[in-house]
Amino acid sequence: MTTTGVSNDVSLDVAADLAAQLRVDSIRCSTSAGSGHPTSSMSAADLLAVLVTRHLHYNWDEPHEPVNDHLIFSKGHASPLLYSVFKAVGVVSEEELRSGYRRFGERLEGHPTPILPWVDVATGSLGQGLPDGVGVALSGRYLERLPYRVWVLCGDSELAEGSIWEALDKASYYQLSNLVAILDVNRLGQRGATDLGWDVDVYARRAEAFGARALVIDGHDLSAIDDALAAAADGLASAQPTVIVAKTIKGKGFSEVENSPDWHGKPFPPDMADRAIAELGGVRSLVIRGPRPEPAEPGPALAHPSTLAPQDQLPKPSLERPVYKVGEKVATRKAYGDALVALGARDPKVVALDGEVSNSTFAEEFTRAFPERYFEMFIAEQQMVAAATGLAARGYKTFASTFAAFLTRAYDFIRMGAISLADLRLVGSHAGVEIGADGPSQMALEDLAMIRAVHGSTVLYPADGTSTVALVEAMAETPGISYLRTTRGSFPGLYADGEDFPVGGSKTLRSGADDQVTLIGAGVTLHECLQAADLLVADGITARVIDCYSVKPIDVGALTAAAQDTGRIVVAEDHHPEGGLGSAVADALLAAGERDFRLTRLAVSGMPGSGTGDELLAWAGIDAEHIADAARQLTASV
Amino acid sequence: MTTTGVSNDVSLDVAADLAAQLRVDSIRCSTSAGSGHPTSSMSAADLLAVLVTRHLHYNWDEPHEPVNDHLIFSKGHASPLLYSVFKAVGVVSEEELRSGYRRFGERLEGHPTPILPWVDVATGSLGQGLPDGVGVALSGRYLERLPYRVWVLCGDSELAEGSIWEALDKASYYQLSNLVAILDVNRLGQRGATDLGWDVDVYARRAEAFGARALVIDGHDLSAIDDALAAAADGLASAQPTVIVAKTIKGKGFSEVENSPDWHGKPFPPDMADRAIAELGGVRSLVIRGPRPEPAEPGPALAHPSTLAPQDQLPKPSLERPVYKVGEKVATRKAYGDALVALGARDPKVVALDGEVSNSTFAEEFTRAFPERYFEMFIAEQQMVAAATGLAARGYKTFASTFAAFLTRAYDFIRMGAISLADLRLVGSHAGVEIGADGPSQMALEDLAMIRAVHGSTVLYPADGTSTVALVEAMAETPGISYLRTTRGSFPGLYADGEDFPVGGSKTLRSGADDQVTLIGAGVTLHECLQAADLLVADGITARVIDCYSVKPIDVGALTAAAQDTGRIVVAEDHHPEGGLGSAVADALLAAGERDFRLTRLAVSGMPGSGTGDELLAWAGIDAEHIADAARQLTASV
Repeated sequence: MTTTGVSNDVSLDVAADLAAQLRVDSIRCSTSAGSGHPTSSMSAADLLAVLVTRHLHYNWDEPHEPVNDHLIFSKGHASPLLYSVFKAVGVVSEEELRSGYRRFGERLEGHPTPILPWVDVATGSLGQGLPDGVGVALSGRYLERLPYRVWVLCGDSELAEGSIWEALDKASYYQLSNLVAILDVNRLGQRGATDLGWDVDVYARRAEAFGARALVIDGHDLSAIDDALAAAADGLASAQPTVIVAKTIKGKGFSEVENSPDWHGKPFPPDMADRAIAELGGVRSLVIRGPRPEPAEPGPALAHPSTLAPQDQLPKPSLERPVYKVGEKVATRKAYGDALVALGARDPKVVALDGEVSNSTFAEEFTRAFPERYFEMFIAEQQMVAAATGLAARGYKTFASTFAAFLTRAYDFIRMGAISLADLRLVGSHAGVEIGADGPSQMALEDLAMIRAVHGSTVLYPADGTSTVALVEAMAETPGISYLRTTRGSFPGLYADGEDFPVGGSKTLRSGADDQVTLIGAGVTLHECLQAADLLVADGITARVIDCYSVKPIDVGALTAAAQDTGRIVVAEDHHPEGGLGSAVADALLAAGERDFRLTRLAVSGMPGSGTGDELLAWAGIDAEHIADAARQLTASV
Repeated sequence: MTTTGVSNDVSLDVAADLAAQLRVDSIRCSTSAGSGHPTSSMSAADLLAVLVTRHLHYNWDEPHEPVNDHLIFSKGHASPLLYSVFKAVGVVSEEELRSGYRRFGERLEGHPTPILPWVDVATGSLGQGLPDGVGVALSGRYLERLPYRVWVLCGDSELAEGSIWEALDKASYYQLSNLVAILDVNRLGQRGATDLGWDVDVYARRAEAFGARALVIDGHDLSAIDDALAAAADGLASAQPTVIVAKTIKGKGFSEVENSPDWHGKPFPPDMADRAIAELGGVRSLVIRGPRPEPAEPGPALAHPSTLAPQDQLPKPSLERPVYKVGEKVATRKAYGDALVALGARDPKVVALDGEVSNSTFAEEFTRAFPERYFEMFIAEQQMVAAATGLAARGYKTFASTFAAFLTRAYDFIRMGAISLADLRLVGSHAGVEIGADGPSQMALEDLAMIRAVHGSTVLYPADGTSTVALVEAMAETPGISYLRTTRGSFPGLYADGEDFPVGGSKTLRSGADDQVTLIGAGVTLHECLQAADLLVADGITARVIDCYSVKPIDVGALTAAAQDTGRIVVAEDHHPEGGLGSAVADALLAAGERDFRLTRLAVSGMPGSGTGDELLAWAGIDAEHIADAARQLTASV
């Protein structure tokens, strides 16, 4: 059977035929690739057939059309189904589906990524598509103010991820009636039954308790699906997200595998695939499109909790670009808040998120200045980064902040953000032992290593207010994952306004023709390096001091010059010894082919406790005294 | 007023007096330290006063008494309250409370850590104490089979963390009636109201939907608290965890700050503290202990889902220590499963967890052999690591496995595990681009950097079955956070049974007197290094090959010898360039003072897509050809 047509009014009979095609194509592409998840695709084929033909408003010729709905496969392993949908709407060819799936150099990857223009975010790490969808829906409802819907297909296994519940919590808090989660409850995970099996009522109760409207349906009853999707789509004026709990059968449509726990993530061998395709009525070549979105202008601004908060409790911050004096004490976290406000005043695409610590990170200044562009994520760091990913997919320049230590909570989301090709701007405050009394749970000592290891990341770590402002501005123009590490305490300004701080650069604060040693720091340790240089004067040792504010990329030229000029380098960092600033310096020097230098790395090698910042810097051996000692030893021994 | 006594039958009047003392002491210690969270302590003081005097069964003289209940402050910032409790039961002195809190070198840290013998796990990163408590409760119910209860005090802000819901989901799935979560709903987070405020009914509905029994009370009504705690304690024979939803007032007891959003995390200045203490009736010196646990023997084994699963579907694995032949192809993940079973047969303390991928990680072999010691955590990696932390606190040797990529989901829990002084044994399979078709979402390319940066961690990465078995055995005896990275594909055995693989060692597989270059690999890249050495023979280049199976600690001796003997080193790793094997090698050589060597590091510097493992190893430039090329360039240029 071959039918081709573009229609806004596809009957359920045709949708049924399309569902069979989606199953057949899911089987064909995974069998051709020798890997993939046909059975997890088949359980959701009816849901997708009805959605795509009758409810998803999408101009397939213009994937970047602002009023398009969004379709996110949170269960990214059902990529055969998604790609079969793309074939069914005519944007992926039969040839590509058959020979491009999961192949080297092709775009139909094992799990969807935004290499494909119809994919908003990369999925495949479960429990992330729905949180990402919250970000897209926030944009649709409050920023773009367009009537599009965000349809997210979730697996039931991934409902065990707490991030799903963070997402529903925020979706209801922000009244995201434009968000529809479709739960494909096929009962079976990778290695057997899920913990709730087919207990769809429990899923519904959980969704309702988290503030969603829940609709329980038979996920293979096209009429019931149609009604539920229509109800979900109609809810745009309501104040609740919708969760459609669809009871389905894994492998539905092929009797040999239906509801079997033994066929997760396995393509059918060719003979089995032939039998399955025969049972499903053979290969089809339907090309069918559903409704296109109506043109729409942005609607009126809607109130949300940040806009409703009594902003006048605290004075409005200045919208001017902040200027700090040399010697003036300012915390870099405060400079972040000041800079973000100024950036937001210039660029309406700047948006801020925070994990309920905005009065510590100083994101609260942005909240007061631009409440409509601030979304409180409460203590849900995974959702915070996911929302940033969704907002980035909609073109917003989102800055997401929390204590640097708690960004570790979201590492999987940061990693997936890189795969999503998202521009994520992350800001971590209260780095290192410098924070003092709160103790190790609040001290970021792994964050530099964590973010450096992410593909294409940028890691910035300013030591004063002026450089912070410049680096926040640089982040706004930096693609990929960028990270700003800020410090709790206030330290004297080092740079005059107007100084340039390119990403990948550094500043040499002390230098002379006969420098005997180079001291490299960033953030708090730069101030210790400067003090150490002063101490060394008494020993007759002249030290070069470099502010390595750009940890990745790092200033190879300045480092190699230092190695060549002084032959001795001390690096001090408020971070564990592995993967941070010291590693970045060592990596760069070795990669540049430098050999004739000696390097002493000072870092936090023990497990800290509470104390004052000064006590702990001394205990860790990264204060001025220890840096000076290391320099003395290096200079004495050669 | 001064009353001293140890009693099993403390009246509520005395508990009321104790509550006032706990508030006063929380104020005193935080004011003395100049930091801390008095108001968050005061909201929960009534709950703790009744709990500690009448329901917590604890022998304070013997904190390691197996039948003791457990008290976990998931809201770790309420440490002033916890330490005031410790003073009230007479295990912390007035002097220590007054001068030891949050001070350098003292044990009353800003957030509780197990430096204190009455603390099971470190908290302070919110949303972790309850998941940790699930691990303790699993031990109590199924492994130790003792009638102790696990009482966890949670804040309301932390209920926004998805990990809390992962914990309740698993607590109900495993029928942990010995677990009681006490929610201190004081309405106020750090920067203002929580998203649900005082809507205690919503919290109750959420808890019930997640399978718990919920009891809503006024958290300042001692009689209501007493009834709820009694009901919770009585539930031991039931099949549900209990969640007590206590509506409380932040700063309760001091009218100047009650229910104020402006007093989060701030100690009162001395004059205010004086007024607060006066309002609370002055300083008290009650020393009161509640009931001691009855002696108890382990009860009968209880069925749980793993023991109820139809284990006979698959054959029982061999309990023998596995032996693989040199040249025999085996996947290191399979060897992990084999080794774990043999370890479990020898040591009844060995327990396994997995994140619903046990048929990929091969933890399923352990499930089949010892279902009573296996706990399926489904797709909830945070809860998996937290459960391992709780089980470690009870003395079990827990191995927790999932795809290495998804351990990133639990990074904050791993970091906190180190602060908890927990011995966590983590196993990540499917590392790197070698996995092929599934694409980047499933490829661990940051895991070595992530775990290396954790304090006191051990990172192991075997290349064959024999070394995997030895390293799994070594992990059983390794303190702290240890990590085993395994590979998807099968590779030929390199070592005969009986070979020794000490942590911190390496194996030199090829070497001679006139080696011109050293090739260093681990896991899949070691096999590529061996092939590269073969290729180089045709060029007349003799290569040393080192299996760097212990990435941290690393074999400094073998590396420095290689640098000195060959002067040229190529390191290849299936990981991003930052913080992994190459960094470990570079760090070690520089730290050892080596200077006269040249190092080429090959790693995955691009963003991979799908493909075959071989295609992707070649694309990344970490296959035998690229390693050989790097060696040729190094040897040609000197």
